[in-house]
Amino acid sequence: MKLARIGAVGQEKPAIYENGEYYDVSSIFPDFNESFFEKGGLAAISNLKATDFPKISGRVGSCVARPSKIVCVGLNYADHAKETGAAIPTEPILFFKSTTALSGPNDDIIIPKNSTKTDWEVELAIVIGKKASYVSEADAYDYVAGYCLHNDLSEREYQLERGGNWSKGKGCDTFAPLGPFLATKEEIADVHQLSMWLDVNGKRFQTSNTNQLIFNVPQVVSYISQFMTLLPGDVISTGTPHGVGLGFNPPIYLQAGDVVTLGMEGLGEQKQTAIAYQG
Amino acid sequence: MKLARIGAVGQEKPAIYENGEYYDVSSIFPDFNESFFEKGGLAAISNLKATDFPKISGRVGSCVARPSKIVCVGLNYADHAKETGAAIPTEPILFFKSTTALSGPNDDIIIPKNSTKTDWEVELAIVIGKKASYVSEADAYDYVAGYCLHNDLSEREYQLERGGNWSKGKGCDTFAPLGPFLATKEEIADVHQLSMWLDVNGKRFQTSNTNQLIFNVPQVVSYISQFMTLLPGDVISTGTPHGVGLGFNPPIYLQAGDVVTLGMEGLGEQKQTAIAYQG
Repeated sequence: MKLARIGAVGQEKPAIYENGEYYDVSSIFPDFNESFFEKGGLAAISNLKATDFPKISGRVGSCVARPSKIVCVGLNYADHAKETGAAIPTEPILFFKSTTALSGPNDDIIIPKNSTKTDWEVELAIVIGKKASYVSEADAYDYVAGYCLHNDLSEREYQLERGGNWSKGKGCDTFAPLGPFLATKEEIADVHQLSMWLDVNGKRFQTSNTNQLIFNVPQVVSYISQFMTLLPGDVISTGTPHGVGLGFNPPIYLQAGDVVTLGMEGLGEQKQTAIAYQG
Repeated sequence: MKLARIGAVGQEKPAIYENGEYYDVSSIFPDFNESFFEKGGLAAISNLKATDFPKISGRVGSCVARPSKIVCVGLNYADHAKETGAAIPTEPILFFKSTTALSGPNDDIIIPKNSTKTDWEVELAIVIGKKASYVSEADAYDYVAGYCLHNDLSEREYQLERGGNWSKGKGCDTFAPLGPFLATKEEIADVHQLSMWLDVNGKRFQTSNTNQLIFNVPQVVSYISQFMTLLPGDVISTGTPHGVGLGFNPPIYLQAGDVVTLGMEGLGEQKQTAIAYQG
């Protein structure tokens, strides 16, 4: 099943996405949020027939409601580690995105005030289905609700030149377009065989496949759960492959008016226009 | 006014703390959460008379409900930067704690599984009162709801020896005891003149004052709001002074059975017992 959220910012309604149509299930479920996943919403919704519900259209929001956290894995593709000049990590590198960065898949990207280094990153994201603490790799899939597409936007000056951790450059508003839909686990035959791509203004910048992940889905879920408790609805972003703007010489960053399109096999596509911050 | 949350984990009720008693205001306010601060709860509660409400007793929970984020400032006291061997930062260092780390001020500290380097950090925490984005230092106090005491517990191996960012060692369950109460802004005459202390097993380890902060309250609020939007109820922890376990040679870390007590002028005291993880 494919789950989406349709409506204006902050007023999204939960919907089933089927054959190109969205069906509004807000009469049954308030939202695709922590409570939905915690209380068996995924099992309950799988028994519903989408066409029994009214069609809905409008803006596509992030495919899950604001989670307790967005945990990201850094440098999880060898070719991306190389392009940034970093060593290939021997264990996952973790950082957080502020959850206020969450955005719809086709919403504008706001280039932060006085920022010049906004960059793109196509990524596979995992949505957690139940509370996970000290989970083994063998059991990790039991804690996964499904998968979605994520553009892990990054302001490279904030991330790398402003001292300390990476979070300054990862959590700006609109820096986490998520969706267009959450594909529940059974929709994806092999999560480690998904091709992905990202274009800027129609030019291809990133092409890869999840078969290139250094740390795969069960490894990442298990690993993170050793350090913190993952809650239902939490989002893990698994890292980006080669081809980000930072990797070019000279680097290439988003300018107002640039259009970013990206997609992943089985997880749909996103299209964003970069705009300047309007203070 | 002093606000606290009383009750079992996950069932805390909002209360006013006055003259050593807690008064249950859950008939008026569901919780001290994002919605409370966003919808003018602070102004509304300031018109109430605590003694009009029933007394409540029991476990003291974190003084605010789980926020959207806990943002921390690293190395914000010169003597602490020195003891860790780090340079004095030229702008605030930021990192996140997983909000699942939130804990009551007197709850046990769970030493993570296989962990040997759990350390303490007495800190002044700020609670945000309204949505803050690109806030100036001059306006920053308008966005502050109040202040509370925070023990920013840290697993130093996870933080410093496991690759990448600090968040691995900051967000373990029970690593953010917050409270016992939120002192609203007007309760604190000068937030930059608060003495603080922390003992382990009755031995003094940390003694300082917020007058030693490198980046003060309005600077920190303004600075963070340039990189991400702060939401009502969000928590900012402002950093710890000299005297953490990491700073000793050899370092001193918490063992099961150790008792940590800490306090800050005007913000009350905490007392935690370290226990081993029970898997």
